[in-house]
Amino acid sequence: MTSLKKLYSNKDGEAGSDNLGVDYVVHYLVPTKERAEAEAGFVQLIQALTDVGLATEVRNGDLGSLLVFVKLASADLLGQQVYRGRLQDWLQGIRTSGPNSDLAKVLEDEPVTEAERLRLVYQLITRPENDGGAGINQASSKWKYVNDVFPLHDQPFNRSWIQKWAKKWLLDEADLDDIRNKFGESVAFYFAFLRSYFIFLTFPSAMGFAAWMLLGQFSSTYALGCGLWSVIFLEYWKKKEVDLAVQWGVRGVSAIQLPRPEFKWDYEAEDLVTGEPVKVYPSRNRIQTQLLQIPFAIACIVVLGGLVVVANSLEIFINQVYDGPGKQYLGFVPTMILVIFTPTFSAVLMKAANALTHRENYNTLDAHKAALVQKQFVLNFMTSYMALIFTAFVYIPFGDILLPCLDFWRRTAQVLTFSEKPLPTQQFRIDPERISSQMFYFTVTAQVVNFATEVIVPYVKHEAFAKAKELQSKTTEDQDHAEEAAFLKRVRGECALEVYDVTDDYREMVMQFGYLSLFSVAWPLAACCFLINNWVELRSDGLKIAVSYKRPIPWRSDSIGPWLDAIGFLSWFGSITSAAIVFLCSGAKGGNRGTTSQISAWGGLLSILLAEHFYLLMQQVVRFVMNKAESPGLQRERRERYLMKKKLLAENLGQNVNPKAAVTVPGVQAGETITRKVLEEEARQASIRGHGGPEEMFWQRQRGMEETIAIGRRMIKLQQTAAEANKKHNGPALAPSLKA
Amino acid sequence: MTSLKKLYSNKDGEAGSDNLGVDYVVHYLVPTKERAEAEAGFVQLIQALTDVGLATEVRNGDLGSLLVFVKLASADLLGQQVYRGRLQDWLQGIRTSGPNSDLAKVLEDEPVTEAERLRLVYQLITRPENDGGAGINQASSKWKYVNDVFPLHDQPFNRSWIQKWAKKWLLDEADLDDIRNKFGESVAFYFAFLRSYFIFLTFPSAMGFAAWMLLGQFSSTYALGCGLWSVIFLEYWKKKEVDLAVQWGVRGVSAIQLPRPEFKWDYEAEDLVTGEPVKVYPSRNRIQTQLLQIPFAIACIVVLGGLVVVANSLEIFINQVYDGPGKQYLGFVPTMILVIFTPTFSAVLMKAANALTHRENYNTLDAHKAALVQKQFVLNFMTSYMALIFTAFVYIPFGDILLPCLDFWRRTAQVLTFSEKPLPTQQFRIDPERISSQMFYFTVTAQVVNFATEVIVPYVKHEAFAKAKELQSKTTEDQDHAEEAAFLKRVRGECALEVYDVTDDYREMVMQFGYLSLFSVAWPLAACCFLINNWVELRSDGLKIAVSYKRPIPWRSDSIGPWLDAIGFLSWFGSITSAAIVFLCSGAKGGNRGTTSQISAWGGLLSILLAEHFYLLMQQVVRFVMNKAESPGLQRERRERYLMKKKLLAENLGQNVNPKAAVTVPGVQAGETITRKVLEEEARQASIRGHGGPEEMFWQRQRGMEETIAIGRRMIKLQQTAAEANKKHNGPALAPSLKA
Repeated sequence: MTSLKKLYSNKDGEAGSDNLGVDYVVHYLVPTKERAEAEAGFVQLIQALTDVGLATEVRNGDLGSLLVFVKLASADLLGQQVYRGRLQDWLQGIRTSGPNSDLAKVLEDEPVTEAERLRLVYQLITRPENDGGAGINQASSKWKYVNDVFPLHDQPFNRSWIQKWAKKWLLDEADLDDIRNKFGESVAFYFAFLRSYFIFLTFPSAMGFAAWMLLGQFSSTYALGCGLWSVIFLEYWKKKEVDLAVQWGVRGVSAIQLPRPEFKWDYEAEDLVTGEPVKVYPSRNRIQTQLLQIPFAIACIVVLGGLVVVANSLEIFINQVYDGPGKQYLGFVPTMILVIFTPTFSAVLMKAANALTHRENYNTLDAHKAALVQKQFVLNFMTSYMALIFTAFVYIPFGDILLPCLDFWRRTAQVLTFSEKPLPTQQFRIDPERISSQMFYFTVTAQVVNFATEVIVPYVKHEAFAKAKELQSKTTEDQDHAEEAAFLKRVRGECALEVYDVTDDYREMVMQFGYLSLFSVAWPLAACCFLINNWVELRSDGLKIAVSYKRPIPWRSDSIGPWLDAIGFLSWFGSITSAAIVFLCSGAKGGNRGTTSQISAWGGLLSILLAEHFYLLMQQVVRFVMNKAESPGLQRERRERYLMKKKLLAENLGQNVNPKAAVTVPGVQAGETITRKVLEEEARQASIRGHGGPEEMFWQRQRGMEETIAIGRRMIKLQQTAAEANKKHNGPALAPSLKA
Repeated sequence: MTSLKKLYSNKDGEAGSDNLGVDYVVHYLVPTKERAEAEAGFVQLIQALTDVGLATEVRNGDLGSLLVFVKLASADLLGQQVYRGRLQDWLQGIRTSGPNSDLAKVLEDEPVTEAERLRLVYQLITRPENDGGAGINQASSKWKYVNDVFPLHDQPFNRSWIQKWAKKWLLDEADLDDIRNKFGESVAFYFAFLRSYFIFLTFPSAMGFAAWMLLGQFSSTYALGCGLWSVIFLEYWKKKEVDLAVQWGVRGVSAIQLPRPEFKWDYEAEDLVTGEPVKVYPSRNRIQTQLLQIPFAIACIVVLGGLVVVANSLEIFINQVYDGPGKQYLGFVPTMILVIFTPTFSAVLMKAANALTHRENYNTLDAHKAALVQKQFVLNFMTSYMALIFTAFVYIPFGDILLPCLDFWRRTAQVLTFSEKPLPTQQFRIDPERISSQMFYFTVTAQVVNFATEVIVPYVKHEAFAKAKELQSKTTEDQDHAEEAAFLKRVRGECALEVYDVTDDYREMVMQFGYLSLFSVAWPLAACCFLINNWVELRSDGLKIAVSYKRPIPWRSDSIGPWLDAIGFLSWFGSITSAAIVFLCSGAKGGNRGTTSQISAWGGLLSILLAEHFYLLMQQVVRFVMNKAESPGLQRERRERYLMKKKLLAENLGQNVNPKAAVTVPGVQAGETITRKVLEEEARQASIRGHGGPEEMFWQRQRGMEETIAIGRRMIKLQQTAAEANKKHNGPALAPSLKA
């Protein structure tokens, strides 16, 4: 395990920081009670790994477990795996050119990055046996003692990476390439997105600051600017994503889907494209299950929405109506309710989401993940935004309708306190600043808390856990060879770390984007806070991966996946909420808030309608303008394809081909001779065959160019004569015969 | 020229119906006054044609013109042109495989359709000289006497085509293929679209009929159904279009853009993809010109919209208010105003649109055409829909606000009649049936009139024109060879025909779709009328191409182009207008129309908002569902690419390659031996080199699988002992050493 101290020390050659050529560590559990079974499994594991050409070493893990170290046995095998991988990429249309068929040259042509090597080795370990892999799959009961298969952190790299980032203001593309080479495109895409988002955040920050200083809350100018910004950011990122995918050679990779081991199929059919057998689960069955998403969403809205309404109205009652004893303590009750019940309900609903997604039985990991992300998004949407939605759309504009609700709390309190006399209360007044303080909570307090739970808590937890384990592990550590001791200690530490899932980081950023897009009009400083937060986030996420989690398997991806849709949805929805907030709350703030009249409903709908269509129009315009310029990535790809084809052509024809001159078009001289020859030939054939058909007759009246020209000239002359005669006689002239 | 009579006669071998192998006819003008210049140009023409390998024959045209007949001089040249064309298609990614490099086999592998041949010959004639063509371009001053270059109608085909279509109810795909092979994909796409649209029309027809019988006008159920239908139709067509493009081998053809001869460039630059020089006009300049589209659109709205308001309010005044003498004659005045001024204003605006598009200076024909179509669409939108918009959104719901306008007409009439006493008037009452009668006019009367102007008028005009010319043409006809006389007469007839532009036909259908989508809720029978009309339209359009127009140059295309966007716009806009019409007019019809109160504005906006979002939601759902099933065309394309790559691979490797087994992955036995050998080798090397580094040390502790297994087993056993000891002593056990 890396401790923070080590990460910031400059000792490069520290003991145990070298990975000794290990590709993967298999953490194998040996529960005391199932020793015989585990031992048999261990033998099978080593055999399976050896069979596919992997070298193995075994060492003691923490008590009750073994560490099996795995590496590719030979450079040849690496070459074969790389060739196989690149060949499939080419067949699937991801690479423009196939790999060199000379295995030895494959690695020379295009060196293998650490991420590619690790990905291929992982696939070799996990692929089913009939597909040339070792078939080690934690989901199957055969390998139930395999706790985890993970690569080891590259300590020197992590150290220099974190140190470098701490010292610079802005990441550059080279930093992203570093991440890609170490952790794979999937993680690199997250950092690329975060970087672009961070840079783009400067615009709403500046706008927000200006609006805060000059226009105050609920400024429609800021709302329009923010909407426009979100459109531009979204469209920019769509382009950028494609560019990066081309640059990293992974464009189209999302089409190669990894099969999901838990998938249950009904029957096998032939793939219509490749002709190979594929497992099929009727999509009709799946759609039936997917329909359950509707009650799920309703449950989310009712449960979490109800919780928010209860907690918020109670809070309003305590803070703004109740004026009796213990007010300062009672103020914590609603927060307690939220803190206790939100995670509880969320956990239950999340469990339901997991079960539902499992029942939807997707055949690929990506589809499963996307479906899960979708449901999580609904959940997160409710927990994150419901309180603000309640304030913006119920409390501020229609505070009066809360009165019965507040009265309910008053009566409940009355009953609970068993007092006869009425509770001491004050006049209920709507406080438009409530939304600002809520926004402040979500943008500042929550982000700080989040940073703590995300980075500090796991680190401290792990350190404490490690300390506690240290005594226990003495047993196994004593058995280590002295020169390996430091290394093995580190590996045991990494074993205990959790698996990193980039989804959580994406979710955090997307939810943040949502606050900005949906509610920042109520508190324009939000973007500034996010800007500062994300500067830290970018680094703390790096630190997190390096320190608090196992090194991730370097998966590939060509996009930020389902999050793109989530951002698009939030951006569109933001145009509606912003317009509604401006309309509903600006009146409340000015103090001239009328009753909930028809007039304001009319105006509110109109402003929503206009804002939404402004948004949609801007989207079209921005897309149009952005499509004007072809993205450099796509251009590069098209160029590569073009050059590859040209090369192929040159190889086939054995010459340097210019597509325009690929065929020798007869030149001036050649043309004449060809035509002549052809015509003469035809004439000869016609005379042989006697008279020939009407077609031959037609085409042989004028033999060759000169005759055509001569006869044409004569016609022109005769027509002129005729025209002149026509003019003179005002009637048809006597036509001089051409036939003679 | 074909007369209708001939088309329906069954005599196949009629004189002059054979094209005698002619590919193209060049209609060359020889104005009497510029004879010398025209004669020089004629010589150049024949030389240029001959130079590129085309055989020529010259005959007299109508007086003052020559007919130059052109055909490819040899089959070899055809082979070369086909090879060249297909090679470029492959380089541009349109074909999955390049053409065979053996020229002789090119035609054998994939026979040439008539459309392909004609297209290649046309390109040979018109391509610039430095690009291997004859460079005959009517836009240049050098070829100003070239009046037209056109292919000859295939009479027997046309005859059987029209006869076949008249006899069947529904076209099938084979009919479309016929059109494609004769007239090219561009025309075939129109008929394919019309066919799909016709078949799809049965749904709204049935819905409309049912709604008319059961629900009456302004039914929201019908409006929702119609909106849903338009979404499904649009998404279906997008799929179908791609399918057809793949089937016809033209997918991606729109990326190959034909240069526009009139394009003026500022400088030359290198194409970033192909590396060839391209002409560049800065897009900033173009965007500046494009901004003029905004005043143009405003001018359209003001001029044509104003005209509609004037004519309609006058009509309402005369029909519903005025009650004096001459009412029956005065009723025609507004119609006269529309009939006279609409074409006049449209012509002026169309001229402006042309000039504007010309100034926008597009470098490709497609871009130019799309920009022109866009402007025409604005114009057509105004002329077609403005009267209905006026009735639906002004007259019926807010008729009262017309009163000042009607009063204006009353006073004007008073002044015009110089009478002192007030005009005889009646009480103004809003008549909700007005929109139905207008719809009836647009869906029935206008379509019949349109049929007449489109098919019958040109035919009659041409027949009369031909008769008039007959006397004049005696001069030239007398000079014809007897056996060619019938043929030449036909060619001279075709010469006088107009050039067919598929754009006009698209426009008609798109505008019809607009009536259906925007206003059919006011008169649900519209779809039935359109269904009948389009059955005729499908045939009359065929007849029109065969009889009233020159045979079109068989251009390729892979979509219906800019019209797709127009349909998308109308479909979306329809969701808004339908909701608004239902809300505004159903009240008026029921008789309980209140004043223009806030309540109705509120409800109106809400219904628009709901309808539009229902539309957008449906669009997402339909897209999602349709994307579930991969279109057969795309599947076929992917399969072709896959097989092509596999074939290429097999050729390169000289074996039948299974991608999964492309690399021989070491099997159980092989793996073991390989691993052993490798490990032994490594061990030997390490011992040679003495002690080796820590990495070598690490990996050589356990030599081979058996050792790993044995040591692992020992570890398991020792761990168990330790665990048991732990349990007993509740502390760390004395660890038995493994090192010994």
